[in-house]
Amino acid sequence: MVLPAKDDVRSHCPVNYGLEIFGDKWSLLIVRDIVFAGKRTYGEFLKSEEGFATNILASRLAFLVEQGILAKTPNPSDRRKELYSLTEKGLDLIPVLLSVVLWSAKHDPKSYARRRKDFVTRLNRSAQKTGEDVKELVRKGGFIFAELNK
Amino acid sequence: MVLPAKDDVRSHCPVNYGLEIFGDKWSLLIVRDIVFAGKRTYGEFLKSEEGFATNILASRLAFLVEQGILAKTPNPSDRRKELYSLTEKGLDLIPVLLSVVLWSAKHDPKSYARRRKDFVTRLNRSAQKTGEDVKELVRKGGFIFAELNK
Repeated sequence: MVLPAKDDVRSHCPVNYGLEIFGDKWSLLIVRDIVFAGKRTYGEFLKSEEGFATNILASRLAFLVEQGILAKTPNPSDRRKELYSLTEKGLDLIPVLLSVVLWSAKHDPKSYARRRKDFVTRLNRSAQKTGEDVKELVRKGGFIFAELNK
Repeated sequence: MVLPAKDDVRSHCPVNYGLEIFGDKWSLLIVRDIVFAGKRTYGEFLKSEEGFATNILASRLAFLVEQGILAKTPNPSDRRKELYSLTEKGLDLIPVLLSVVLWSAKHDPKSYARRRKDFVTRLNRSAQKTGEDVKELVRKGGFIFAELNK
């Protein structure tokens, strides 16, 4: 992956700027894994259903750390496994994530969101408040669906 | 670009599903051009600051039409130039677009959003209501910033 130099973005249009940072098929899956399933290690991300290639996962993690979206800390129980968490800048991606969820819940007839009607209803009622609640939860080290972290 | 077959998505996770459709560096720029600047033709999209390559623009337009996000109609004044507009499914991307705008407005120090403080303030106050208003505007053929359509 080509990492854009600090001022090598195509434009500072706010839509474009976001796309330059996380506009790909993988970055928001990492954010999803943290927010929805509480994943924190390379090995946990690697197990995701969509099948990250190892090189893509490694480069996306490095890029998101470089961009200040993820923070990397040593794992106290196993120093070879680093722990990833969302910074405040990363937590601010939660509304983006939730807006994608709402779109797919409405337009994908096979969406897994259909198994989570309560959550989708709450999101439809107030995406903003739900986003703030989720952000607070994740900031404290929690995540949305405990059973997803197998 | 590889167009995924109808059921060739990596998963029906609602985050992933959205990314399979519009998770790239270009699709949401087309939606942006329609919503913010009222662009409607291939030639107008091509002039965007970020510099679409002709083959990328053509393939993204075709894909978004195929996915039911854009509708293509003949241009009454020039039959060689087709007009693109957002379907209801495409209009539903407006909250995604606006959530990206809010993230970049906060995190890009050079963001063009800084020239649009009133709009960003309104968006921060109520993203949901603003999204509904913008959707209604665009559904009627309007767009956000008239002066952007040069």
